[in-house]
Amino acid sequence: MSSDELRISRAEHKDRIERIRSLMRRRRIDALYLVNPTRILYATGFSHISTERPVALVIPREAGLFFMAPRLEYDHIREECQFADEVYTYPDYPGKTHPMRLFARFISDKGLASKLIATDSPDGAAGGYGYRGPSLKDLLSKAKFVDGRDIVDNLRLVKSSQEIRLLKESARWSEVAHDILLENAKSGVHDTLAAVKSSYEALAKMLRKLGQRYVQLRIALSPVVVGFRGQVGTGSAIPHAVYTKDKIRKGDVLVTEAGVEVAGYTAELERTVIVGKPSAKAKKYFEVMTQAQDAALHEFRPGIPCSRVDEAARKSVEASGLGDALRHHTGHGIGLDGHEPPWLDPGDRTIIRQGMVFSCEPGLYFPGYGGFRHSDTVEITKKRMGFITNYPRSLEELRI
Amino acid sequence: MSSDELRISRAEHKDRIERIRSLMRRRRIDALYLVNPTRILYATGFSHISTERPVALVIPREAGLFFMAPRLEYDHIREECQFADEVYTYPDYPGKTHPMRLFARFISDKGLASKLIATDSPDGAAGGYGYRGPSLKDLLSKAKFVDGRDIVDNLRLVKSSQEIRLLKESARWSEVAHDILLENAKSGVHDTLAAVKSSYEALAKMLRKLGQRYVQLRIALSPVVVGFRGQVGTGSAIPHAVYTKDKIRKGDVLVTEAGVEVAGYTAELERTVIVGKPSAKAKKYFEVMTQAQDAALHEFRPGIPCSRVDEAARKSVEASGLGDALRHHTGHGIGLDGHEPPWLDPGDRTIIRQGMVFSCEPGLYFPGYGGFRHSDTVEITKKRMGFITNYPRSLEELRI
Repeated sequence: MSSDELRISRAEHKDRIERIRSLMRRRRIDALYLVNPTRILYATGFSHISTERPVALVIPREAGLFFMAPRLEYDHIREECQFADEVYTYPDYPGKTHPMRLFARFISDKGLASKLIATDSPDGAAGGYGYRGPSLKDLLSKAKFVDGRDIVDNLRLVKSSQEIRLLKESARWSEVAHDILLENAKSGVHDTLAAVKSSYEALAKMLRKLGQRYVQLRIALSPVVVGFRGQVGTGSAIPHAVYTKDKIRKGDVLVTEAGVEVAGYTAELERTVIVGKPSAKAKKYFEVMTQAQDAALHEFRPGIPCSRVDEAARKSVEASGLGDALRHHTGHGIGLDGHEPPWLDPGDRTIIRQGMVFSCEPGLYFPGYGGFRHSDTVEITKKRMGFITNYPRSLEELRI
Repeated sequence: MSSDELRISRAEHKDRIERIRSLMRRRRIDALYLVNPTRILYATGFSHISTERPVALVIPREAGLFFMAPRLEYDHIREECQFADEVYTYPDYPGKTHPMRLFARFISDKGLASKLIATDSPDGAAGGYGYRGPSLKDLLSKAKFVDGRDIVDNLRLVKSSQEIRLLKESARWSEVAHDILLENAKSGVHDTLAAVKSSYEALAKMLRKLGQRYVQLRIALSPVVVGFRGQVGTGSAIPHAVYTKDKIRKGDVLVTEAGVEVAGYTAELERTVIVGKPSAKAKKYFEVMTQAQDAALHEFRPGIPCSRVDEAARKSVEASGLGDALRHHTGHGIGLDGHEPPWLDPGDRTIIRQGMVFSCEPGLYFPGYGGFRHSDTVEITKKRMGFITNYPRSLEELRI
C-alpha cells in the first residue's frame, strides 16, 4: 500500500478492530462472526464479491482474526488483507461436505464451539444466489449466539476524518461527472447512452488525474456512475425507476444521479434538470422542492433527532399545498453503503452527532408528468452542517 | 407491452403463477410470501431496487395476488405489474409505525393471519442496508410459516423456450461486445477504461438495432457489461478479482467477461486472452484449460448428475498434472441470477434435465503469473447440449 493511496489506512483499520474488540469485551462476547461484505470491508479493508459461496470473518476477542472462505478467495484474501492470521478454505459450494459443516469444525478447532458468539447471520452465510445449508447455530449447538450487527454498525454511524476525506474525493468526481452528463444529455438522446458515455469520460479524467492513488474496492463495470436511471420525462415521477425506452425530449423533467466509488465510499449527488424552457408548473414544483431542501439543510445540527430534519422539509412542502406529492422521507445516512442508518424519517429519533453524513433529498412526484428531487451529501459539523457535494442547485444553472 | 418486445410474455407469467399455485395446493399452503427481488421478478415480471425498505409479494392460493411496498413504489408497481390486484403501502422506513407491523395488519385483513404461509424470509424483509425490524413470524403468531423458497426456485431450474430465447439474445450482444473489447484492449490501456468504452459502444449498437424491442429490468449503469474486472496479468490469477491498478501490458494473460441483460436474463461469456506472443507456458496452460472445457462440454446430457460434468473437467486437468491449479468447480446454473442452482460440483447430485442452462468454465490459476478460464453458456438439449454463447475459443483467435 503506497502511503498516498486514497483509502482507509492500516492504522485506522487496526483501530476499528480494537474498538470492535472493546465493544466485545464490554458484552463478554468471545467471537464476532461476520458475513455481510460491507461489515467485513469496514473492519478489514477486504472487499469481495458475495455469491452463493459462504465467506466469513471471525474476530475472536483474544486471538488473531481469521477468514473462512472458498478456495478461490484464498490468494485474494492473502494479497489484499493484512489482518488475517489464518484463512481456512473449502473446495467449493455445495461441496461433498457442506461448507457450513467445515466452518463449524474450524470454529471448534479454535476452541470457540461452546462460547458466546455475536453474529450478523445465525445461518452462517450471506445467502446469495440460491444458497442452501444447515444453520451454523444448529451445527454449534453448545455455542450461544447473539445479534452482533450493531457492534460494527454503531461504529459506522459517525464517520472518521479519513472517511469524510474519501467521501469528499468521491463528491469531487461526482461533480465532474455531472458536468459531463449535462453536456452529453440532450433532446433525442437515450438517457442510458448519455449515462455510459459520461461515466466513461469522467472515469478517464479521474484515472488520469489520480493515477496510482485511486483504489476501487466494489465490483462494478465502472466506479463512476452518472446518469438518469430511467428518470426521464414521466419516468422521473417514479422515484425508483429502473429504465425507460423514451429518449430525452424537449420539455422533459429529468432527475440525475452521480456517484463515484473511492475505496468503497460513495457520495450522492442528484439534480432535477429541465430540458428547454421550463413551464410555469415546472418552475413552481422546482421552487417548492428546493425550498424543502433548504429547510432541511437549515435544520441539520448535532443534538436534535433525525426526525426533525424530515419534519422541516415536510412542513415546507405542506405549507405550499403540495404535500400529496411527497413519496419518501428526506434522506439517509451514507458511507460504505448507498443507504445507511440513521434515517431522516418521522420514525427515527436517533440523535444527530458531529461526523454523521447524510443525503438530503426531499422529493416531489407528479404521476404522468415528472419528479423533482435534488440530493446533496452533507456532514454534520460541530455546530451545523457542511456540504460534501458542492454543485449548482438553481433552475437557471440546471437547464439544458 | 408491444407484442414483439424482448421479454417474458404476459401469458407465460400467468402460467408461472398458475404453476406456483398448483405447487401450493399440493402442499396445502394458503399463501406464498416473497421478498427476494429475483423471485418476485420471475413470478410477475416486476423488477425493483431492493433497499432497506421492505417490499413483499403475496400470492394467496385462492385470491388475487397483492404487493406490500413503500409509498415510493406504488406508481411503479401499478405501471409495471399487470398481476397485482392490490398494492398496500406504508409511508417509508422505519416510519412511526414499523412497516412490518403494517404488513402483519394487511395480511390479517386478508384473512391470512392464522393460515399456512410459505415464505423466503420468516423475517418478512429482504433486509438490505441496515434494515432492522420485528419478525413477521413473531407478529403473526397464529400463522404457521414454512420454507417456500423452492416453490419458485424449482420452477426456475428448467428454462422455457422464451427464457432460452432471451438468453440467446443476451449471448448475441455479449459476442458483439466481446469483439469490441478485443479491439479496445491493448498494451498501455487501463482495463477499466477499455471495459467502459467497449460497453458503451456495444450498448449503442444494441439500442440502435433493437430499439423499442429492448427492455432493461435490472438496475445498472449499463445493461451491457464487458471487461476484465481486474483480471489483468497477475490479477487474472485471482478468480474473483475486483480491480487492478495495472495497465494491460505485453505478455499479460487476461480473463474477460461479457454479459448483456435482456429483460432480466444474462448469459455468461468469458475468454482467456493473451497480449502479444504467447509463451510456451501460456500455450500449455491454455491448452489444458480448453481440453478441460471440452471434456465438460462433451459430458453434458440429460439424465446424469451435475457432479459428472465437474468430474470430467477435473479428471482432464489432473491427467495433465495441473490439478493443483484448480480453484473452483466447473460451473453453475444461470438465468435471472448470474449464479443459480444447480451446480457443476462434486457435491451436487441433481440430475441434469433438458432445458437447464449452465455456465461451463473450468479454470486454472497460477499465483503471480495468471489465470486461464473460458466460460460458455450452454443449454441442455434432448440428447446432449447446445451452445448459447457462440464465440471463438482457440488461442490463435484470442491473441491481441
